[in-house]
Amino acid sequence: MKHILFDTIAAIATAKGEGGIGIIRISGDKSFEILDKIFKLNKGNEIGNYKLRYGFIHDNNKIIDEAMVVKMPGPRSYTAEDVVEINCHGGYLITQRVLELVLKNGATLASKGEFTKRAFMNGRIDLSQAEAVIDIIEGKSESSLDISIKNLRGDLSNMIKEFKKTLLDITAHVNVVLDYPEEGIDDPIPDNLLSDLHKVYDKANELIISYDKGKLIKMGIKTAIVGRPNVGKSTLLNSLLREERAIVTNVAGTTRDTIEETINIKGIPLILVDTAGIRKTDDIVESIGVKKSKEIIEKADLVLMILDSSSEFTKEDKEIIDFISENNKKVIYLLNKIDLERKIDISYLKDSDIIEISAMKNIGISDMEDKLYEFITENQVQDTGEKHILTNIRHKTALEKTKVAIENIFNTIELSLPLDLISVDLKEALDSLGEITGEITSEDILDHIFGNFCVGK
Amino acid sequence: MKHILFDTIAAIATAKGEGGIGIIRISGDKSFEILDKIFKLNKGNEIGNYKLRYGFIHDNNKIIDEAMVVKMPGPRSYTAEDVVEINCHGGYLITQRVLELVLKNGATLASKGEFTKRAFMNGRIDLSQAEAVIDIIEGKSESSLDISIKNLRGDLSNMIKEFKKTLLDITAHVNVVLDYPEEGIDDPIPDNLLSDLHKVYDKANELIISYDKGKLIKMGIKTAIVGRPNVGKSTLLNSLLREERAIVTNVAGTTRDTIEETINIKGIPLILVDTAGIRKTDDIVESIGVKKSKEIIEKADLVLMILDSSSEFTKEDKEIIDFISENNKKVIYLLNKIDLERKIDISYLKDSDIIEISAMKNIGISDMEDKLYEFITENQVQDTGEKHILTNIRHKTALEKTKVAIENIFNTIELSLPLDLISVDLKEALDSLGEITGEITSEDILDHIFGNFCVGK
Repeated sequence: MKHILFDTIAAIATAKGEGGIGIIRISGDKSFEILDKIFKLNKGNEIGNYKLRYGFIHDNNKIIDEAMVVKMPGPRSYTAEDVVEINCHGGYLITQRVLELVLKNGATLASKGEFTKRAFMNGRIDLSQAEAVIDIIEGKSESSLDISIKNLRGDLSNMIKEFKKTLLDITAHVNVVLDYPEEGIDDPIPDNLLSDLHKVYDKANELIISYDKGKLIKMGIKTAIVGRPNVGKSTLLNSLLREERAIVTNVAGTTRDTIEETINIKGIPLILVDTAGIRKTDDIVESIGVKKSKEIIEKADLVLMILDSSSEFTKEDKEIIDFISENNKKVIYLLNKIDLERKIDISYLKDSDIIEISAMKNIGISDMEDKLYEFITENQVQDTGEKHILTNIRHKTALEKTKVAIENIFNTIELSLPLDLISVDLKEALDSLGEITGEITSEDILDHIFGNFCVGK
Repeated sequence: MKHILFDTIAAIATAKGEGGIGIIRISGDKSFEILDKIFKLNKGNEIGNYKLRYGFIHDNNKIIDEAMVVKMPGPRSYTAEDVVEINCHGGYLITQRVLELVLKNGATLASKGEFTKRAFMNGRIDLSQAEAVIDIIEGKSESSLDISIKNLRGDLSNMIKEFKKTLLDITAHVNVVLDYPEEGIDDPIPDNLLSDLHKVYDKANELIISYDKGKLIKMGIKTAIVGRPNVGKSTLLNSLLREERAIVTNVAGTTRDTIEETINIKGIPLILVDTAGIRKTDDIVESIGVKKSKEIIEKADLVLMILDSSSEFTKEDKEIIDFISENNKKVIYLLNKIDLERKIDISYLKDSDIIEISAMKNIGISDMEDKLYEFITENQVQDTGEKHILTNIRHKTALEKTKVAIENIFNTIELSLPLDLISVDLKEALDSLGEITGEITSEDILDHIFGNFCVGK
C-alpha cells in the first residue's frame, strides 16, 4: 500500500485571508533546490536545518517579499520528506504570488490534505491520527479538541493495537488447533483468551455507544430558533451571540439563504441555525415563517420555540408546536416580550416548561441559558476524560463490523460449530480494525478522508 | 517620542479561519518565560534561538496541541524585542485556545498592528515602512505589491532622506547668513543649493501627481455593473468571475446588501461592485433597479452599462445613461442578449462605442475584456517600475505641505523678502517630510495608522 511519491508539492498552509504571517509549505525531494532559486538570505550564506532565517523571496532578482524560511530535512519533518516553510506576509495576493513562484520553480500544487497524506503514506502517523489532524483544525469546542489531540497522540491507535493483539493471540491459537488436529485440543479457545475477547467486545461496544455523544461534541448541537414572524427570533439570536463571549464563527451554508452561527456553552458547540431571510427581517408572511420554521426543526437536535406573549396564540403557533412533537424533538419553549402587555393564552402548552423572557430588555436570558446548560448536562455531551469517546463515523462503522465478527465467534463456540468459521471471523475483525488505522484501506477511502482536508495541510 | 513598552503582548498572527498551520506570536520581556511554562520539547531540553523545535503545548500538563516553536531574542526579531512564535494547528478554536493559554500565563492581547508599531517604536523600521507592511497584506494587485515591497525596503524613505538633506543644507546656510550678518553674504541661497531645492520641488510634485495613478493601483478600479432589471447583470458578472482565472476575493461590504468581488486584469484589481439584492435576482421592480444603478454609479471609477437588445429601449435605460454622463463617468456600453431577436433601437447612443455580447452564450466577452484592458492602459494604471508611485494619501498630504513651503521659499527669494521667512518655511517643509517617516508625528496619527492593521501584525 505504502509507496514513495517523488514529486514535490507546495501550498499555502495558513488560512485564507489577511493576517500578519502566511506560510507557504513545500514538501519533496526538490524542496531545498527550489528554495535556493527563490530565496536570498539577508546575511550569511548558510540557511542550516530547522533554523528560521530572514531574507528575501525573489523572482529573477525582483524582490517579491521579505520572509523567514526554514528547511526541515526528512524524515524529521511533517511529511517525513524534505520540507521547506516560507513565512511571508499574510495577505490574499502576496501568499498566492509566493506560491506561484514556488510552482514556477518546479513544485506542483498540493491537493487537499496531501501533506498529511504523505505523513501517513511515509509511516509517520496512522490513519486515525491523520483524521485527528483535520478534527483539530475544524474543532468547534474544547471537548472535541481534547478528544482529537488524544487521537493525534495515538490514544485510539493504542486501543486498536490492544484489540488486535488479543485477536492475533487467538488467531495463533486457532491456527495451532487447526494445523495440528492430532494434538486433540478440546477448547477451541482457552478461557483466558476468551475472557480477553470478551473485554475487547465490551470495549468496542462502549466505543460504538460513545459515538452518539461524540457526534454532538464534534459536530455541535444543532439548535433551531423558530416561531412565527415577529415573535423576536432575530433579537433573541443577537442577544445570545452578544451574551456568550465565546468564539462566534460565521459559517455560510450551502446556499446563501442559510446562516449558522456557533456559540460555545460549557465547551460544547451550539450551532444556531437560522435562515438569512429570517435573520434579515421578521417581516415576512405568516405561512412562509411557519414553513421555514418546519424546515429547520427537521434538521435540529434542539429547538428553541418562541411565542409572543403580547399577541394572541395563533393556529400557526399550534402548527409549529405540533410539528415539534410529531418530530419528537427536544424543545425549550420561550415566552418572549413579557415586558409588554400580556395577551397570549398558552393553555395549549400547559404540561410544558416555559421560560419567560424579553429578548429586547434582556430579561430571562440567563434562565434560558441555564436551561441550555441543563440540556447539555442531561445529554452528557461532555468529555469527562475518563473513557474514550468516538467522534468519527468511519471508526464506528469499522468497530461495528468488528463487533459482529466477534459475536459470530461467540456463536460458533456456543454452538460448537467448525473451528474454520472462527478463522474467517477473526480475519474479518482484524481487517475492520486495520481500516481504522489505515493498514487495510482503499484508495477511495483515502481520497475521501484527505479530500475533506484543507489545501496546505 | 520613542519609548520602551514593557508589557508582553500576544495575538494570532495568521489569518482567521481553517488552515494547516496557525501562528501565535508573543513579543516582550516575558515571551521566553511564558513559553517555558506552556511548552515541552519532544526531545532534548534546549530550544535554542531561531530554531524551529517540535513539542507540545500544555496547560498544567494537559496537552492542548502539538506545535513547532521558535525563540527570537531582540533586537534580531520583528519587533526588536524578544519574540516567540508558536506554530500550532490552524483552526478557529485551536489557535484561540493556545492564545488564551498564553494570555493566562502573563501576556496581554496585542491591539491591532501592535507588533509593527513596536518595530517602529523600537526604531527597526520607519513609519512609511510600517505602512508598507499593511499595504502588502492588503495588496490586491501585483502592481500594488511591487510598490509596497519597494516601500518596505525603504525606497520612499530614501527619497525623503534626500529631500531632507537638501533642506538641511539650505537651513545650515541660512542660519550662517542670519547669525553672521557682518559677513555680508548677498545671495540668501547659493545657486547650487537653489538648484537642489528645485529638484526636490519637482520630485515632490511628481510624487504628488503619481498619487492619482497610485490610488487606482492600490485600491482598484471600482467597476459598477448597471442596467435595468433583467438585462443580464448577474449573468455577466458570473461570466467575468468565471472567465478571469485570476484571484477572486469576496469582500462583504459594510452592510450585508453590498458585495464586492475583485478580479485582476493585467495586474490591476477591478472591483466589481454589485448589491446582494441585485445579485440574488434581477427580478425587482424597474424603479428600484434604476435607483440601485445610480447609487453604485456614483461611487464607481468605471461603469459597465448593460442594455437588453431583445427588448425596447426604455426611458429607464435613458435615465441611467443620462445619469452616467451627468456624473462624468467613464463608461463601457454593453448590448447584451444579441443571440436573441433584436428589438432595441439604440440611436440615442449613436456616438458611443457599443460592444455586442451575449453573457449567456459567452459571445463578445473577450471584446469586452479588451476594452477593459484598454481602459487600464489609457489611464496608465500600471507600475512601470521607473518612477516611484505614491499610494498613500497621508504621504500625499504631507508632500503637498512640503511643496507649498518650498513655493513660499521661492517667493521669498523672488521678492527679496526677509530671510527669516525662509527659516520658517524650511522648518515647515522638514516637519512635513518628518511626518511621512514618523519622526514628527502624533499619537492620534499613529493610532489611526496602526488601527488599520489586523491584530497579530
